[in-house]
Amino acid sequence: MIKDLIAEIRNKDEKLVIGLMAGTSVDGIDAALIRLYGHGKETRFELVKFTTLEFSESIRNFILKNSNPDTAKLDDICRLNFLLGEAFASAALDVTKKADIDIAEVDLIGSHGQTIQHLPEAQKLYGFNVASTLQVGEPSIIAHRTGVLTVADFRPKDIAAGGQGAPFIPYVDYILLHSPNECRVCLNIGGIANLTFLTPDSQNTDIIAFDTGPGNMLIDLLMSRLSGERYRYDAGGETALSGTVDPKLLDRMMEHPYLETDPPKSTGRESFGSEYADWIIEISRNIEWKNIIATVTRFTVESIALSVEKHLEPNHPVDRIIISGGGSHNKAIISGLEERLPLIHIEKSDEMGIPVDAKEAIGFAILANETIHYSPSNLPTATGARKKVILGKIVLPG
Amino acid sequence: MIKDLIAEIRNKDEKLVIGLMAGTSVDGIDAALIRLYGHGKETRFELVKFTTLEFSESIRNFILKNSNPDTAKLDDICRLNFLLGEAFASAALDVTKKADIDIAEVDLIGSHGQTIQHLPEAQKLYGFNVASTLQVGEPSIIAHRTGVLTVADFRPKDIAAGGQGAPFIPYVDYILLHSPNECRVCLNIGGIANLTFLTPDSQNTDIIAFDTGPGNMLIDLLMSRLSGERYRYDAGGETALSGTVDPKLLDRMMEHPYLETDPPKSTGRESFGSEYADWIIEISRNIEWKNIIATVTRFTVESIALSVEKHLEPNHPVDRIIISGGGSHNKAIISGLEERLPLIHIEKSDEMGIPVDAKEAIGFAILANETIHYSPSNLPTATGARKKVILGKIVLPG
Repeated sequence: MIKDLIAEIRNKDEKLVIGLMAGTSVDGIDAALIRLYGHGKETRFELVKFTTLEFSESIRNFILKNSNPDTAKLDDICRLNFLLGEAFASAALDVTKKADIDIAEVDLIGSHGQTIQHLPEAQKLYGFNVASTLQVGEPSIIAHRTGVLTVADFRPKDIAAGGQGAPFIPYVDYILLHSPNECRVCLNIGGIANLTFLTPDSQNTDIIAFDTGPGNMLIDLLMSRLSGERYRYDAGGETALSGTVDPKLLDRMMEHPYLETDPPKSTGRESFGSEYADWIIEISRNIEWKNIIATVTRFTVESIALSVEKHLEPNHPVDRIIISGGGSHNKAIISGLEERLPLIHIEKSDEMGIPVDAKEAIGFAILANETIHYSPSNLPTATGARKKVILGKIVLPG
Repeated sequence: MIKDLIAEIRNKDEKLVIGLMAGTSVDGIDAALIRLYGHGKETRFELVKFTTLEFSESIRNFILKNSNPDTAKLDDICRLNFLLGEAFASAALDVTKKADIDIAEVDLIGSHGQTIQHLPEAQKLYGFNVASTLQVGEPSIIAHRTGVLTVADFRPKDIAAGGQGAPFIPYVDYILLHSPNECRVCLNIGGIANLTFLTPDSQNTDIIAFDTGPGNMLIDLLMSRLSGERYRYDAGGETALSGTVDPKLLDRMMEHPYLETDPPKSTGRESFGSEYADWIIEISRNIEWKNIIATVTRFTVESIALSVEKHLEPNHPVDRIIISGGGSHNKAIISGLEERLPLIHIEKSDEMGIPVDAKEAIGFAILANETIHYSPSNLPTATGARKKVILGKIVLPG
C-alpha cells in the first residue's frame, strides 16, 4: 500500500491550513494561516496569522491590463498565470515565516486565485451552452514552491453545475456562524455588499444569500474622482461623517431598480461602477463633495437596511448582524446601520473570532478542507447551481 | 470514515480509463478507452476503443484565432476553456458509447487539453523567473458532465520544477516498451519527430529522449502550399513515392544547424515551420513539386537516421525502432528508414499492441493513473526538470 497523502492530511484532528485570496480591487494577496479542527458543520478554527502581500504597482498594472479584453494579450495571460503562482506561493511562505512556523508543518493550502474574467451568463457558442470564469495564479507553482497539498480554482465546478460560480462564502458563514437560537445576517461589505441569512432552522439546502447593492465601490470611485485621484477610499468613513446627506440625491439613487428586485440576485461593476459614478457626479454639480460622499455612504446603508426589512424580516425578525469586509472599518456605515436598524444587535465578525479583513482568506482555507473531505461546498440557493458539487482542483505537493 | 473516491479507484486491479488528447494540428480530440492493470513498471493495458472527434471548422478557427497572441481575446480565451471542456467531455462520452460501455463504469479520465501557448524558456518578469504554458479544456466540465474522476493539466508542474513541460510520452515508452534484452528506439512521427531511447539497463533516471527534427510538419506545409491548399498532407506518402529526391536541395537542408546539435534538444514551428517552408519554396523554383515533397520527406528520414547513428549507436547498437504517430502511415518515410537503417528491425507500435494513432491518448490515460498513484511521471532527462514531480490536477466527479 502506498502512503496516501490526501487521506493522511484529511484524517488529522488538527491541521495547519493557509487560505489565499486576491480580490477584484487588485491590491494584493491576503494570506490566513489557521489551525483547523474537523470539517463540515463541526469545523472550528483559530487564526494563527493574517498577512497581506501587496502587489507592486507594476504587477498591479500587469494584472489590470490583462483583466480587460481590450488590452489583454494571450502570451501575457499565459505568463501572468505563472507569475501570480509565484506571488501566491510567496504570500504562503510569508505568512508562515511571520508566524514563525516552518512551511513543512503546513498541511494544506486553499487558493482562490485572481479573477481576470467572469462570464457566468450562459451563451450559445458553436452548439454548446457556455458560461465561464477565469482565475489565474497557477496552483502547480504554489504546490511545488511550498511542498504543500494545494486546492485551487473553486469557481469552474459550480459553473459546470449551472451556477454563477459565486458566492461561496455563504457556505462558510453557515458552518461557522449558524446559531440554533438566533436569526443572523452575515454581512460582508466589499466593493459590493452581500449577506447570508441564517435562521435557527437553516439547512445547507435553503440558505438565502444575495448582494444588497454597493458596498465600498461607489464610495471608493467617488473619493478617487472627486479628490483628483488623491484618495482611493474614505479612510474610517471620516469624509462621510464630516458631510451631510443630500436628501434629493439620496432619493434619486434609491430609485435604482436593483433595490426593487427580489432575491436571489447579484450585481457588480456593470450596475454600480464607473458609469453610475459618472451619473452621480453629473447630477451633483452643486453639492459639496463631502456631502456627496456622505450621501453615497448612506446609500450603502439604506440598500442594506432595505434588504433586511423587505426581503428578510417579513418572515424572520433578525437578531444579529455580523459584519466583515473592508466596509466594516467605515464608521459612517456602521453608525448608519445602527441608527437605521435599532432593534438589531450589530457587531463586527471579530466578536465571533473572525477578523473582518481575514474572513475571505479563512473561507478559502475552509473550502479547501471541504474539498479534501470530498464534501460539496457550493450552496445551490446562493449560486443558482442545479446541484451541490465538490469544488476545486487538487494539486499534489512536490 | 468517508468513502475515499481516489483510493477506491487507485486500488482496483482493473480500471477502465479514458485518455483524451488534442494536438497542435488542431484537428480534433483523440479518445482512447483502455482497460488498465497495475501502475508504474507493472502497467499493462488493452485498448477497448479509439475514436477521434473532429472539430467543426468554426471551432477549429476559434481555437486557431485564440492560439495566436495577435488575434486572441481574453473573453474568448475564457469561453474557449469551457467550450473545449464540453468538447472533451463529448469525446469521452462518445468513445464509451461506441464501445457500448456505460460511462458510469469508467473509473478515470486523463485529459491533455489543447495547448494555446507554450513559453517554456524562463524570462525575468517583475522580479520573478517565469516560464509558462497554457492548455485549455476545463476539466471541471469534463468531470461534471461525465461523473468521472478527471486528471488534467499535466504540463505546469514540470514547468514549476524547471522543465520544458514536455515531452511526457518517454515515460510511457519506458513503462510500456522497455525490454531487458533489446536496445529500442520509440519513434513518434507527429508534426515534429521525437524518439525515446531504451537500453536494457535504462532506469527512469537516465532515459535519453529528444526531437530528431521535422516529422510531417514540412511535408504538410509544402503539400498545402504547392497544391494551393488542395491537400493538407501527403496521404500514405504517395506524392513522395511518385517523385525523386533532389540531391542538391537535400544537401542544403542537411546543413540545418539543428542536426548538428547534441541532445537533449527540442524543436518546433519556429525552426521547421512556415518560414523554413518559404525558404524551401524560394530555392526550389525549378524543381517539380512531387520531387520537392520526395526531398522533404527524405529530409525527415535522414534527420531520424542521423540521430540514431550519431547520438545513439556510438554507445549502443539499436535493435528495434518502434514507430507511432501520423507519420507512420507515410510509406515513403517507412521504406526510407528501412533502406537507411538496414540492420535495425523497424516496425509500427501496433506490433506491440499500441495502435500508432492512439498512442498519445493512451499515454495520457496512463499518466492520469500514475497521478492517482501519487507517482512522479516526468523524466528529468527528457524535460530538463530539476526533479521528478507528480503531474496534473485532480478534479473529483460530480
